[in-house]
Amino acid sequence: MEQRLSLVTLGVSDLGRARRFYEALGWQSGAAPDDDVVFFRAGGTVLALWGRAELADDSGVEDGGGWGGVTLAHNVRSPEEVDEVIAQAKAAGAAIPREGAATFWGGYSGVFTDPDGHPWEIAHNPFWTINPDGSITR
Amino acid sequence: MEQRLSLVTLGVSDLGRARRFYEALGWQSGAAPDDDVVFFRAGGTVLALWGRAELADDSGVEDGGGWGGVTLAHNVRSPEEVDEVIAQAKAAGAAIPREGAATFWGGYSGVFTDPDGHPWEIAHNPFWTINPDGSITR
Repeated sequence: MEQRLSLVTLGVSDLGRARRFYEALGWQSGAAPDDDVVFFRAGGTVLALWGRAELADDSGVEDGGGWGGVTLAHNVRSPEEVDEVIAQAKAAGAAIPREGAATFWGGYSGVFTDPDGHPWEIAHNPFWTINPDGSITR
Repeated sequence: MEQRLSLVTLGVSDLGRARRFYEALGWQSGAAPDDDVVFFRAGGTVLALWGRAELADDSGVEDGGGWGGVTLAHNVRSPEEVDEVIAQAKAAGAAIPREGAATFWGGYSGVFTDPDGHPWEIAHNPFWTINPDGSITR
């Protein structure tokens, strides 16, 4: 198995609401209004939104109903940018379980959860490089 | 918020077991034996393994205890390669909720779950391109 991640699919309860949330953050999908899956390019990976029940069925898993042990992260270039993205997410309707602050590992981060409760850590990691294309080098 | 995904962290109950599973699939982390987080480069994104309780606390979420609405996917270049990766995962100890088969969307895919129950769809999507560096163009 090659060391690659192609796609991350987030199960959602209301596709239109989830799509509007990511679009309010400035993301663009190109999906048609009635598409039942919405794909966002995210560098060389794709982030997809799909009905959570359909995703559970397709994945052959039982839905635990809450958070299931996966957190996404979006690294930015400065602590100030962490605060800006957290503020933007809050304005778009996200919950903010953790405001931007210095972390134990020497960086600065905050967390928002999208309308379906999927957490995103927004992080400035001074030890990792964000390349011009947005990819990470560590 | 730029349209990027930097890191996906999987919460695990036994870091050594989880690490050995991904290493058995051929992945390499470069982590020290006693590191409490294991990072795998996965193209321009990073896949991390960390204790699930620590991840829940750090993410400011309640742990639902099961699957939580996130499925990862790894796209490959042929239906045969889907079957090969599923067989490799099974040999490494994965459960296989769905063997490789034609899909309703015109591709071919199967699903394995890692030792912590995180599902990976292994998919051949004839409509998407896998670039030489492993990134996806759709």
